[in-house]
Amino acid sequence: MFSAADHEFMARALRLAELGLFSTTPNPRVGCVIVQSGTVTGEGWHRRAGEAHAETHALLAAGSKARGATAYITLEPCSHHGRTPPCAEALLAAGVTRVVAAMQDPNPQVAGQGMALLASAGVEAECGLLEAEARELNIGFAARMSRGRPWLRMKMAASLDGKTALENGVSQWITGAAARHDGHRWRARACAILSGIGTVRDDDPQLNVRAVATSRQPLKVVVDSALELPLESRVLNDGGVLVATASEECEKSAALRACGAEVVRFPGAIGKVDLPALLDELGRRGINELHVEGGFRLNGALLAAGLVDELLIYLAPCLIGNAALGMFDLPALATLEDRHRLAIRDLRLVGPDVRILARFAANERPA
Amino acid sequence: MFSAADHEFMARALRLAELGLFSTTPNPRVGCVIVQSGTVTGEGWHRRAGEAHAETHALLAAGSKARGATAYITLEPCSHHGRTPPCAEALLAAGVTRVVAAMQDPNPQVAGQGMALLASAGVEAECGLLEAEARELNIGFAARMSRGRPWLRMKMAASLDGKTALENGVSQWITGAAARHDGHRWRARACAILSGIGTVRDDDPQLNVRAVATSRQPLKVVVDSALELPLESRVLNDGGVLVATASEECEKSAALRACGAEVVRFPGAIGKVDLPALLDELGRRGINELHVEGGFRLNGALLAAGLVDELLIYLAPCLIGNAALGMFDLPALATLEDRHRLAIRDLRLVGPDVRILARFAANERPA
Repeated sequence: MFSAADHEFMARALRLAELGLFSTTPNPRVGCVIVQSGTVTGEGWHRRAGEAHAETHALLAAGSKARGATAYITLEPCSHHGRTPPCAEALLAAGVTRVVAAMQDPNPQVAGQGMALLASAGVEAECGLLEAEARELNIGFAARMSRGRPWLRMKMAASLDGKTALENGVSQWITGAAARHDGHRWRARACAILSGIGTVRDDDPQLNVRAVATSRQPLKVVVDSALELPLESRVLNDGGVLVATASEECEKSAALRACGAEVVRFPGAIGKVDLPALLDELGRRGINELHVEGGFRLNGALLAAGLVDELLIYLAPCLIGNAALGMFDLPALATLEDRHRLAIRDLRLVGPDVRILARFAANERPA
Repeated sequence: MFSAADHEFMARALRLAELGLFSTTPNPRVGCVIVQSGTVTGEGWHRRAGEAHAETHALLAAGSKARGATAYITLEPCSHHGRTPPCAEALLAAGVTRVVAAMQDPNPQVAGQGMALLASAGVEAECGLLEAEARELNIGFAARMSRGRPWLRMKMAASLDGKTALENGVSQWITGAAARHDGHRWRARACAILSGIGTVRDDDPQLNVRAVATSRQPLKVVVDSALELPLESRVLNDGGVLVATASEECEKSAALRACGAEVVRFPGAIGKVDLPALLDELGRRGINELHVEGGFRLNGALLAAGLVDELLIYLAPCLIGNAALGMFDLPALATLEDRHRLAIRDLRLVGPDVRILARFAANERPA
């Protein structure tokens, strides 16, 4: 159905889309390549919300050479008036005669209507070329569109024997500089970075992107059920912090607001933050990919609540021993049949450390 | 110094040597390729102790075409009369004019004398081509020759969170069929397989090679300080078992001998087997590679004694939780600086599982 040339041009569109990896949120990453008689006449990618879509850039570059051309787009062109006019209409107006999309737009406002609009106007409209790759690039956007919640990626650093810290909580630094740098690329592509009060108090992390260049900092989210966050915490620097709490309004919440933090209540059981409610709220706020760097307890609570989509695990080639802290505070299993099952998605060395990306089997592909 | 053709022929010799992976013990794995004017005129590999060396096979195949040829050998040819006559003399007698060896023989009875004998007879004798690969192939032989003890490879299977069994000891099967099959290839190349009484009692393993074809079964070694090994244990089937104990002679030792086991005392501290003494004895018995499949306690004791050279870890893509058993019973560390450091030697997927081969930094290359 699709030719080798089709694959080549769509792969090029995917590479363009990836240029928006750190910046398009809450929009998806999209690339577009316009080809006439085997020659690329225009290409573009979406940079950030409110700015031109990939198709607009590509059509502008192609000019009159869009007439009779094929447009390769990593996501179905939009059919609705959002912050910018619908791209499907722009493609028609430019005289494009064939549109190949990698995947249907999971946004229920589009969901096939873009391709249908094109087809009804006589354009050859095909969908599904390199779909798995396109879906992977927008896994968070697809998750949010289909279930309201962000895609939750939990990052951990441990020794080969699965220990994240000594008994006394000391954990910096188990993994090497290359792994930490790599970790910042994952932070940069996330829309928000979430941690728990234990980690924030013990390690005083900044929870921002430093090691890679980015035009945007993710939202910082701290799960702090009892509002224990010290006012001098580094995470409060430079704003952009949401403190999720189970506490009533009090002096501390006012003090945190005075420090520039937003404090929101998600009251759950036994004085704890209602994690599903927090994730729903992050979804409403347009968070596609949620990057979690928590500790033993928060990691365990998120897993137990079934909110984790994948694990990003860095294993340092060392052993720390049995007395040290493990990766998750998870209740004991009665049988091995009950174990949480995942599938390895990616495996590589990052400097001297092993990096494993493992996805919960049930979430391998969001519905 | 070495040409592309030299590399190609030595690589071929290494592939030949690897054919003896499961059978040459206690001898090293050796391959030989004889080349005249760019054409292979003979090749061979060592099959098992007492049978012809690689050079003998290759010279026989080359016949008169060995005259003026180059011999590529993965290990320096022997210069001493062992169970077979010295290969260095045979190469001379056949008229070979150039000998390229991948590595010097670590056997102190050879240790450069083979190459020296050839050079003194006017043969162009060079050493060190693809040496790292050759050394890897005979890492156990080199370890035994240089330090008396076997190369100790500790195999483990764990979940992604580093758990090997549930609290109740249930561990079969965390990893998949492909990993278990792969594990048998490592058993097959080992000269002996060692386990502890805890594992033998709980899992009743056979500790033999089943999933791959082999002409030889490794020696089975059970560390059983107090002679608790049940007489109906499957490990006692088919003989070839050494029970290492700290116990005095007693009815149980006699009963185990009646079952075909050899019972040897290695009395150590607090009624435990003296593990370094056991390893020295295994070295004296010609064990090059020792494959350990123990549990939490034996693994911890071997690590604490500094006897482990590398870890072969299979990680199944699942989580078992914090209450489950970890990989090693190791004393708590005071600081992260004290952690046991390794280097990743190989990383790959085996079926759905991750396989990590990690080597203790200090043992990266035996002296």
